[in-house]
Amino acid sequence: MKQILLLGAGRSVSTLIQYLLRSAAENNWHLTIIDVSVDHLQPVLEGSDCGSAQVFDVHDRQQCLQQIGQADLVISMLPAAFHVIVAQACLEQRRHLITASYATPELQALDAEARRMGLTFLMEAGLDPGIDHMSAMATIRQLRERGARLLAFRSYTGGLVAPESDTNPWHYKFTWNPRNVVLAGQGGARYLEKGAYKFIPYHQLFRRTESLHVEGLGDFDGYANRDSLSYREPYGLQDVPTVLRGTLRRRGFCQAWHALVQLGLTDDSFQLPDATRLTYRQFTEAFLPYHEPSEPLEHRLARYLHLPPDSDEMRLISWLGLEEDTPIGLKQVSPAQILEHLLTRKWRLEPNDKDMIVMQHLFDFEQHGQVKRLKATMVVKGDDAVNTAMAKTVGFPVGIAAKLLLQGKIKHSGVLIPIYPEIYEPVLAELKSYGIDFSEEEEELP
Amino acid sequence: MKQILLLGAGRSVSTLIQYLLRSAAENNWHLTIIDVSVDHLQPVLEGSDCGSAQVFDVHDRQQCLQQIGQADLVISMLPAAFHVIVAQACLEQRRHLITASYATPELQALDAEARRMGLTFLMEAGLDPGIDHMSAMATIRQLRERGARLLAFRSYTGGLVAPESDTNPWHYKFTWNPRNVVLAGQGGARYLEKGAYKFIPYHQLFRRTESLHVEGLGDFDGYANRDSLSYREPYGLQDVPTVLRGTLRRRGFCQAWHALVQLGLTDDSFQLPDATRLTYRQFTEAFLPYHEPSEPLEHRLARYLHLPPDSDEMRLISWLGLEEDTPIGLKQVSPAQILEHLLTRKWRLEPNDKDMIVMQHLFDFEQHGQVKRLKATMVVKGDDAVNTAMAKTVGFPVGIAAKLLLQGKIKHSGVLIPIYPEIYEPVLAELKSYGIDFSEEEEELP
Repeated sequence: MKQILLLGAGRSVSTLIQYLLRSAAENNWHLTIIDVSVDHLQPVLEGSDCGSAQVFDVHDRQQCLQQIGQADLVISMLPAAFHVIVAQACLEQRRHLITASYATPELQALDAEARRMGLTFLMEAGLDPGIDHMSAMATIRQLRERGARLLAFRSYTGGLVAPESDTNPWHYKFTWNPRNVVLAGQGGARYLEKGAYKFIPYHQLFRRTESLHVEGLGDFDGYANRDSLSYREPYGLQDVPTVLRGTLRRRGFCQAWHALVQLGLTDDSFQLPDATRLTYRQFTEAFLPYHEPSEPLEHRLARYLHLPPDSDEMRLISWLGLEEDTPIGLKQVSPAQILEHLLTRKWRLEPNDKDMIVMQHLFDFEQHGQVKRLKATMVVKGDDAVNTAMAKTVGFPVGIAAKLLLQGKIKHSGVLIPIYPEIYEPVLAELKSYGIDFSEEEEELP
Repeated sequence: MKQILLLGAGRSVSTLIQYLLRSAAENNWHLTIIDVSVDHLQPVLEGSDCGSAQVFDVHDRQQCLQQIGQADLVISMLPAAFHVIVAQACLEQRRHLITASYATPELQALDAEARRMGLTFLMEAGLDPGIDHMSAMATIRQLRERGARLLAFRSYTGGLVAPESDTNPWHYKFTWNPRNVVLAGQGGARYLEKGAYKFIPYHQLFRRTESLHVEGLGDFDGYANRDSLSYREPYGLQDVPTVLRGTLRRRGFCQAWHALVQLGLTDDSFQLPDATRLTYRQFTEAFLPYHEPSEPLEHRLARYLHLPPDSDEMRLISWLGLEEDTPIGLKQVSPAQILEHLLTRKWRLEPNDKDMIVMQHLFDFEQHGQVKRLKATMVVKGDDAVNTAMAKTVGFPVGIAAKLLLQGKIKHSGVLIPIYPEIYEPVLAELKSYGIDFSEEEEELP
């Protein structure tokens, strides 16, 4: 009986667990789930005799090695920082590994050894990174097979809220780690446009958006992700002059977020001396130059940010309550942590809210002397705050890849991302059966 | 015969070496100077029989321990990153230590052990940090002794170029590590103003300047230094509502530097894929949004930075040659390193140039119902590019402190900064004899 070990059972793992339990039942496998707290898994596990859960601290190296030694495949949904430890333990115990996180240089350094042992360490197998790679690679191959010459590749993904649950002026609710959302983009971004490098520092990132349109959903803004250049080689795009990967937000979000970045509220590099008695208003005031308090904070804030006081940006900032005299009530925190604390309340996905994933690839290409654009768009909605679109679009591809690996259908070994047809073809085909699919439009460019 | 060990003989150590050789001659001491290259020290050492130089890599732990073991006092002028290693070796060998660098938390962690062993680890004993602490503490004590109640303490220091050698529109030349100048301020700044915390993120720092005037020299701008809050306790300023330490530049510098920061040119967080064939113009273009090249770079740059094309800021940027089609000729470098490479050429202190140190403290206080400001200003000029004002104002206080320590006149032990009268009184008195002194003005505030 093959053993699957799932490390981490936090937010957005619901779909993955359901999928793995079903696969286990069909294939006579067993799933062991491990996390620091597993009580919430009881309802799911009670309906299956193929799964069990254990409490466990991944810092306990001895237990970690022992558990991994008993598995045929390890899936890690732990925070990204843990993956190097887990991957090293997988090397020691000679076990396969799947994660939905980035193949960082530290992980890539294990490639030769994993390859030598015939182990598959499949990284970036979730949504973004994950489905984005798989769907882009499938389309790039199709385009090349029909003789098209790629001129530009742009790809954007957003974890958003569905229109029917969109009840705030930011048009955004958290469906993913709030801390990651608050710190998003802090490394700046690098991409390629018409053959030239483009570098955007963090403090300009949310000002440098591109406009995108999704049929039936309206307009979005996309901002560039960290390092698009690093995907040129794996995608085989060395001869393509424009390569950009980015994140989608509803119109208005980036402009107001840019104002918060300008102010300094996303700074995570220092801790406030003491924010216990500090109010949100005093916190906001701390980022403005000193001024006799005769002029209202709201006006000084707008002027400092070079915004009209009645602008959309100021309306969104005001809605957050940053000018209110409510105590923050936190000790020893950074500005970014205070902002996260506030947003977690303001941007909460309510139990019956539906989230929404939007992914859009834009392929510009030349064929028979014509320049055309192929737009491939995926929209997935969640059922509620547990079975989210995020949980589905991360969980299904990881689960399907796990099944393929245990069935011996993935031959590639080493530290890899899902850019090979033997992986992306069956994953994309099965995703389609769960309604996770792309619609395509082609248009001629002037 | 007492032994002084000086680690590091780089830029701006000329005065210190001359001073230590003189002290050694007067007191029958011996000075050993150690660095990776010491050839340039021969002319200085030939005139003295109290000093010798050796080549040595501080990474060689065995040799490091041995050398420190033979000394009575260690002075480290190595780059700041080395000081923890040196301090630990001094603990092992039970030797006193003096540096001109910050007493970082890592160094402060050695305080209890140094104290237990009766060792003095005197940090921040140069110019800034150094003379700023000593002169401020002396004046704060005088003010309190005459019954004044301090309302505000502001202190600014700048390493600048003397008016007679000021030949460029930035009014700046390098007299200190260029890399540190390019990266200055990247941690943002925190200070206290009228009882309220003030936080400035890096990308706003050079916009948030204060105007200062120095009699006979004209106007300067000051921008806030990293963490002024941390000096409230050592200075005994817990009850003073305004505490700010900052850096001085000539009028115009900060505004143009702010534009470079906005653009992203000071980013040190990533390396360019390859800058060998890239020109400065292409480098600058990489930070701008893509645009059909019909509009000149200069105009797009100004618009992106929200500056008039004929502004002073654009004139200063243009003078740097950032729009020129000259190849950079560097491989594997960050934007900040490219900027440093360019500036090292543009802001070079020529052999006969004189640099200039300006320090200004502003003490606002209340006495007999009147609110007054005491302005204490120090101006020191260099002789040439070797005997710089920077070398004098760093070297003399370190050298005098070394003499006092070897003469048994410093009783404080542990990791400390020069805030005690037993240190700052004799150091300030001797500095005066070398022309390093403050002029004071007092005025009533409205």
